[in-house]
Amino acid sequence: MTVAQVDAQGRLRHFLTLEGLPRTVLVRLLDLAQNFDDRRGDLSLRSTLAGKTVCTLFFEPSTRTRSSFQIAAQQLGADVLNFDASTSSTSKGETARDTMKNLEAMGVHGFVVRHREDGAVAALAGEARPGTALVNAGDGRIAHPTQGLLDMLTLRQAKGSDFSQLKVAIVGDVKHSRVARTDLHALRTLGAGEIRVCGPKSLLPDDATTLAGCTVTEDFDAALEGVDAVMMLRLQRERMEEGLVGSLADYHGAYGLTARRLQRAAPDAVVLHPGPMNRGVEIDDDVADGPQSLILRQVANGVAARMAVLEVLLGA
Amino acid sequence: MTVAQVDAQGRLRHFLTLEGLPRTVLVRLLDLAQNFDDRRGDLSLRSTLAGKTVCTLFFEPSTRTRSSFQIAAQQLGADVLNFDASTSSTSKGETARDTMKNLEAMGVHGFVVRHREDGAVAALAGEARPGTALVNAGDGRIAHPTQGLLDMLTLRQAKGSDFSQLKVAIVGDVKHSRVARTDLHALRTLGAGEIRVCGPKSLLPDDATTLAGCTVTEDFDAALEGVDAVMMLRLQRERMEEGLVGSLADYHGAYGLTARRLQRAAPDAVVLHPGPMNRGVEIDDDVADGPQSLILRQVANGVAARMAVLEVLLGA
Amino acid sequence: MTVAQVDAQGRLRHFLTLEGLPRTVLVRLLDLAQNFDDRRGDLSLRSTLAGKTVCTLFFEPSTRTRSSFQIAAQQLGADVLNFDASTSSTSKGETARDTMKNLEAMGVHGFVVRHREDGAVAALAGEARPGTALVNAGDGRIAHPTQGLLDMLTLRQAKGSDFSQLKVAIVGDVKHSRVARTDLHALRTLGAGEIRVCGPKSLLPDDATTLAGCTVTEDFDAALEGVDAVMMLRLQRERMEEGLVGSLADYHGAYGLTARRLQRAAPDAVVLHPGPMNRGVEIDDDVADGPQSLILRQVANGVAARMAVLEVLLGA
Repeated sequence: MTVAQVDAQGRLRHFLTLEGLPRTVLVRLLDLAQNFDDRRGDLSLRSTLAGKTVCTLFFEPSTRTRSSFQIAAQQLGADVLNFDASTSSTSKGETARDTMKNLEAMGVHGFVVRHREDGAVAALAGEARPGTALVNAGDGRIAHPTQGLLDMLTLRQAKGSDFSQLKVAIVGDVKHSRVARTDLHALRTLGAGEIRVCGPKSLLPDDATTLAGCTVTEDFDAALEGVDAVMMLRLQRERMEEGLVGSLADYHGAYGLTARRLQRAAPDAVVLHPGPMNRGVEIDDDVADGPQSLILRQVANGVAARMAVLEVLLGA
Repeated sequence: MTVAQVDAQGRLRHFLTLEGLPRTVLVRLLDLAQNFDDRRGDLSLRSTLAGKTVCTLFFEPSTRTRSSFQIAAQQLGADVLNFDASTSSTSKGETARDTMKNLEAMGVHGFVVRHREDGAVAALAGEARPGTALVNAGDGRIAHPTQGLLDMLTLRQAKGSDFSQLKVAIVGDVKHSRVARTDLHALRTLGAGEIRVCGPKSLLPDDATTLAGCTVTEDFDAALEGVDAVMMLRLQRERMEEGLVGSLADYHGAYGLTARRLQRAAPDAVVLHPGPMNRGVEIDDDVADGPQSLILRQVANGVAARMAVLEVLLGA
Repeated sequence: MTVAQVDAQGRLRHFLTLEGLPRTVLVRLLDLAQNFDDRRGDLSLRSTLAGKTVCTLFFEPSTRTRSSFQIAAQQLGADVLNFDASTSSTSKGETARDTMKNLEAMGVHGFVVRHREDGAVAALAGEARPGTALVNAGDGRIAHPTQGLLDMLTLRQAKGSDFSQLKVAIVGDVKHSRVARTDLHALRTLGAGEIRVCGPKSLLPDDATTLAGCTVTEDFDAALEGVDAVMMLRLQRERMEEGLVGSLADYHGAYGLTARRLQRAAPDAVVLHPGPMNRGVEIDDDVADGPQSLILRQVANGVAARMAVLEVLLGA
């Protein structure tokens, strides 16, 4: 059983995916995230979720994403319970549902869930009591909505909130990337002028729906020509073992973002990467640490975006 | 060296076992737990243990029990330090005593301890400074007193505080269960009308003390006849490897609680299970999730019961 | 790139090593630590670092040191984020620098870092933004400055603040010990009257700089003669595997501190050990737990010393 993330009154009940999320809801979250970014360090925010308990329930480890959510929850005054489900009673054969229902009974109000399987978080949300909210912190290959939110916030800060003239390239292992799928939904919802998807054939999605409205190319140089933003994706090393890409050097030669290559983009183009980076593989040091990089801005925005989601779902 | 958990003035200094705990102390804890259950979410409770540090010191992992204690301590405003002793300096050869004494010197006021060995927590309590309190979160096969407390609270909420007419069945691997031993002590202390203990011969205790005052049977149907409460126990899969039970299907056939079987109990009988459940083994889905199940209520009561214990031991 | 821990105005920016730390700065930290030790449990301290986030970033596990820092930060009202870098994205190939820069971007103000390599923490400090502070919680064989601080605080409490008449012996595996190197710096800075370094030849440093100004001997009995303080070091079991020491019994015979041996020291001599102890190897139970032992006092002082460092680096 899955569940609608937006209720009949248009209120967000869970935050599961950017696919189909109404533009008004998305823009409201971005506005709120911007507000939290502006108010960084404001101690009066501590009363926002005072008395609420947020549980990071990770069935797949990710210390970095967990930390971002933990800081976001602490900034809002919530109690945080880190529950590593990969080393807990789940390993005693308990179902994910029972683990969640138990923590809910203990008094957890909001769950931040990461899971290996597509749709796992939506399925859990369907089992939650009214009043309990779930946030998808990444499941399967499909959804990572807070990453999409922070990416859009980062683009908006750099390029303004009208995306209609924006040319964006998404480059790398699009096929296996929940980040790419999520960004594609968000960019379409916000009316991005042109979306280019680029990578080797073996790493491009084979379904038309994912690529709807995008220009698709295997030629990285062509994809970069005149773009305003380059969104690089992490190359998982498993792709080599699976024979989907050749050597790291080959990959870098064809799809590594170098300073020289970046010159094909617009002069004020910005560079994004969801991290963790494989420096020297999909991105070079002088780009990652260069003046056009917004990579650490993305990380900072991640906390603001997660504060926005938690506030909308759990705030008074 | 062990230590008395109740001092000469009748005050609880540690919470180690329900065996021998005076009825008045047990009832007072239940009353206090009920009060905390009623005041769930009351932010004024946050000052109760402000400035106190509670350390969960687990020599055997149990994320679920640890989480329940962590939430209880947070609700009362304590600082929480999670110390996983199975992956710490203990692995460098430090004794449990030295680990505890070190954390005590750092300023920990209350320890929540889980340990594999019978009596380990009482032994540690004997080494604590005056003013430091230990809570047994489960040791060996013997004691798990906060589980007993939450089970009694759950029964009392469902059936009233007079247990004299209450018929209770405890079913499954009684022999290896600290939950069963603990519940037996509590039920006797509270004067339960009839206690039935049921399981295959290989999983029944062989000492008369444990079973004092109980009706013992291997026949599950007989044990269920007219009871007011069924307390199911988890079947550890090790019991199969040890040859103590046959296949899971056999076990389910003889000792699995099905909806059909439950009809033998009183019409308003309630079902308890300490979790994590082996669904389809000792309990069926439609019972676990059915209207007679109090299993999630037990989990909720676990937090209230632990708040009561922490408040009594560490409160002003 | 490394960085100066003291800025041009003489203010501490990071806390990386006691080597070269000006006497005035060291004494100020000791005074402040003493003040925190005196004010243990004072709830008004909670506002000191309210709104600050302290991250324990451990590339090498140490639950005990992490706990001491966590309690120190909590006592001052900071938020604490425990980041176990040995099981995180670092294992996905991310550099230590990127991990730190990411957490910094999330809003971490102070990092408590432990690392296996000499100089690793200073290198990371060189990458931090202005305003971000790093504390070395132990790196390589060289530095563990908060341990040095707590050891000096402990000596000062026992023997007064004038160290000029003080005779101190440091005994054991000096060669591989960051604790020993750190204490040597501190003792010299504070003008200790006499410093004796003792251990088997295989475990004594071979560089003159480390031993500058010390009396060096392999004879434990001679080293103990009339000393005011004995600082025992932990014997890592790896030293046996490396063939640097013989059996544990041999080591105990030559360098184990027994009650009998301790009689050679001054009658009011005190005994220190950084923990975790190998009881029966470098120290006997009746010494570790005896009236001259300050070992648990050291642990208590560790929290006060870490509070002092965090307050100086991150306080208003």
